Amino acid sequence: MSVLRQDPTTKEWIIFATERARRPDDFIKGDTTVAAQGEKPPVSSCPFCPENEAATPPAVLTFPAGPSQSWSVRVIPNKFAALVPGKSQGYQRIENLYFQMEGVGAHEVVIETPEHDQLLALVPEDQLFNVLKAYRERYRTLRQEPWAKLILIFKNQGESAGTSLRHPHSQIVATPVVPREVRQKYAVATAYYDDTGRCIYCDVVKEELGIKERVLLATDRFVVFHPYASRFPFETWIAPKQHRSAFGDVPDEDLQELAHVLKVTLWKFHSGLGNPDYNYVIHSAPVEDERKSYYLWHLQIIPRLSKMAGFELGSGMAINTVLPEETAEFLRQVV
Amino acid sequence: MSVLRQDPTTKEWIIFATERARRPDDFIKGDTTVAAQGEKPPVSSCPFCPENEAATPPAVLTFPAGPSQSWSVRVIPNKFAALVPGKSQGYQRIENLYFQMEGVGAHEVVIETPEHDQLLALVPEDQLFNVLKAYRERYRTLRQEPWAKLILIFKNQGESAGTSLRHPHSQIVATPVVPREVRQKYAVATAYYDDTGRCIYCDVVKEELGIKERVLLATDRFVVFHPYASRFPFETWIAPKQHRSAFGDVPDEDLQELAHVLKVTLWKFHSGLGNPDYNYVIHSAPVEDERKSYYLWHLQIIPRLSKMAGFELGSGMAINTVLPEETAEFLRQVV
Repeated sequence: MSVLRQDPTTKEWIIFATERARRPDDFIKGDTTVAAQGEKPPVSSCPFCPENEAATPPAVLTFPAGPSQSWSVRVIPNKFAALVPGKSQGYQRIENLYFQMEGVGAHEVVIETPEHDQLLALVPEDQLFNVLKAYRERYRTLRQEPWAKLILIFKNQGESAGTSLRHPHSQIVATPVVPREVRQKYAVATAYYDDTGRCIYCDVVKEELGIKERVLLATDRFVVFHPYASRFPFETWIAPKQHRSAFGDVPDEDLQELAHVLKVTLWKFHSGLGNPDYNYVIHSAPVEDERKSYYLWHLQIIPRLSKMAGFELGSGMAINTVLPEETAEFLRQVV
Repeated sequence: MSVLRQDPTTKEWIIFATERARRPDDFIKGDTTVAAQGEKPPVSSCPFCPENEAATPPAVLTFPAGPSQSWSVRVIPNKFAALVPGKSQGYQRIENLYFQMEGVGAHEVVIETPEHDQLLALVPEDQLFNVLKAYRERYRTLRQEPWAKLILIFKNQGESAGTSLRHPHSQIVATPVVPREVRQKYAVATAYYDDTGRCIYCDVVKEELGIKERVLLATDRFVVFHPYASRFPFETWIAPKQHRSAFGDVPDEDLQELAHVLKVTLWKFHSGLGNPDYNYVIHSAPVEDERKSYYLWHLQIIPRLSKMAGFELGSGMAINTVLPEETAEFLRQVV
């Protein structure tokens, strides 16, 4: 089982994923072994392809498809899970300054389509709707676990975004701790709420809708925009107009419209920027804070167009080389 | 001039570096223009090489060399500076929720050697000592500026670490704000001090010296170790045994020994891991907190052996795939 260790100087928890354990010499540059590169199976042996289901742990959720295919979306525990369900003993002090805890939690893979060579930007809207419904169903199941403190849904598209498996997939992680960064965002949102009685995220959405120049797209229920203080070039937020803290609470009608909005946005990236690698993350409030009204779930897309260097790693601050007004204008033109 | 914008949801400041401004279509994948790739001049026109000094802004510091070379270390303002000295108007509200400030600060380049094709891991110890003295002298000058809140010294080695200029160089940035991440570290250190009357970093150093298994190297004045909760594979800290908050206060004898310890450590990376790309950062207390005794300056090395993916970007937490005890043991064997 994996283990979490707490950094005593930041109070952040680091996951040591021993299921995907590597030996120090796996990191020698130029090493081309499977262990060093991650698994890159040929299509015929891709564990995410139909008829290879036995190569993965049993599915925790399967959506059926039409007669030509056995399933449309399949959710499985990650074979190399960073966290696995179980009973946690809580924090254990192992040295004077050092705490650890067992790697209890969940780490699942959402196989987004049976088609190996597909891109999420190109799948039909109905299929995207299925993927989003799978996310929501797993979110609803996982939040009932006593150890689930935060449920993060994310996608790594392309090698520079951290994946080596081509078959379209995303991941769901339920952590047994609330990350410090999330606590910090919550502290800001709480202070704003106590000052104004309003959700800061909802106010940002309203402000962006009023200013317009950073908005890519607005529909009845959603707005897509490049944030005023974007950390990354082309960083994009898809935010709902109606306040909800958690993705698990989004109703069907909203998910259907989100599928449309996400499709249009991913297409703009694909077409306008030449299919860049990207990550997206669906942020929700920590499970135990879902009932508070200070946090808005939203989907954040980060195309991997720049590199984090020493300044960013050392300070936590970002240097961006392009204004969000300009990137929003550029993507508005892409149809 | 660049501008800083504050993210209202995190209170973090983002630097928009307009001196190195890029147009949105510079980010289209496969674009191989200079603007998209950064400058990669041939050796003969490398602005950091001797005889091309006119291609850079005038030096702010030059260390002389022997008769065969005109200088040994040269510090210049970054031609594409993210921040430049000037008078700040402070925070300005530009919309209801949004604040900005001018990009006042400093952004300098330390040219580490006149030799274009050198690696810092391979330069003589005396030259490394010169580089460290240049860092310290610039630190001492910059901290007297009214706008200097944090002075960060860092190096980006190799393309995946964020540099495209081959000639060995590092950078110094003085920011007009204290980054949130640094505030958070300070809050943890302050709470620890109030509980115990001691510096948490000094206690970590003592604990690691006692446990030994994560220590690569210990000398009279320094210890090199892989932290208990390392965020990255082979993350390495070089920490002084004597408490000091700021790099600007390190005396000559310590700098001389640091040159030795840094040389040995960089050589172990170079030899043991096949010359990996890496960043290093010299952390100091914020300028206005230098007199407090809660923070220890230290040098952190991050080899770029893994990629940040959606989970890390979304949560701020890290997943590490190898234990620091194992990587420390591996590097101890490299001589």
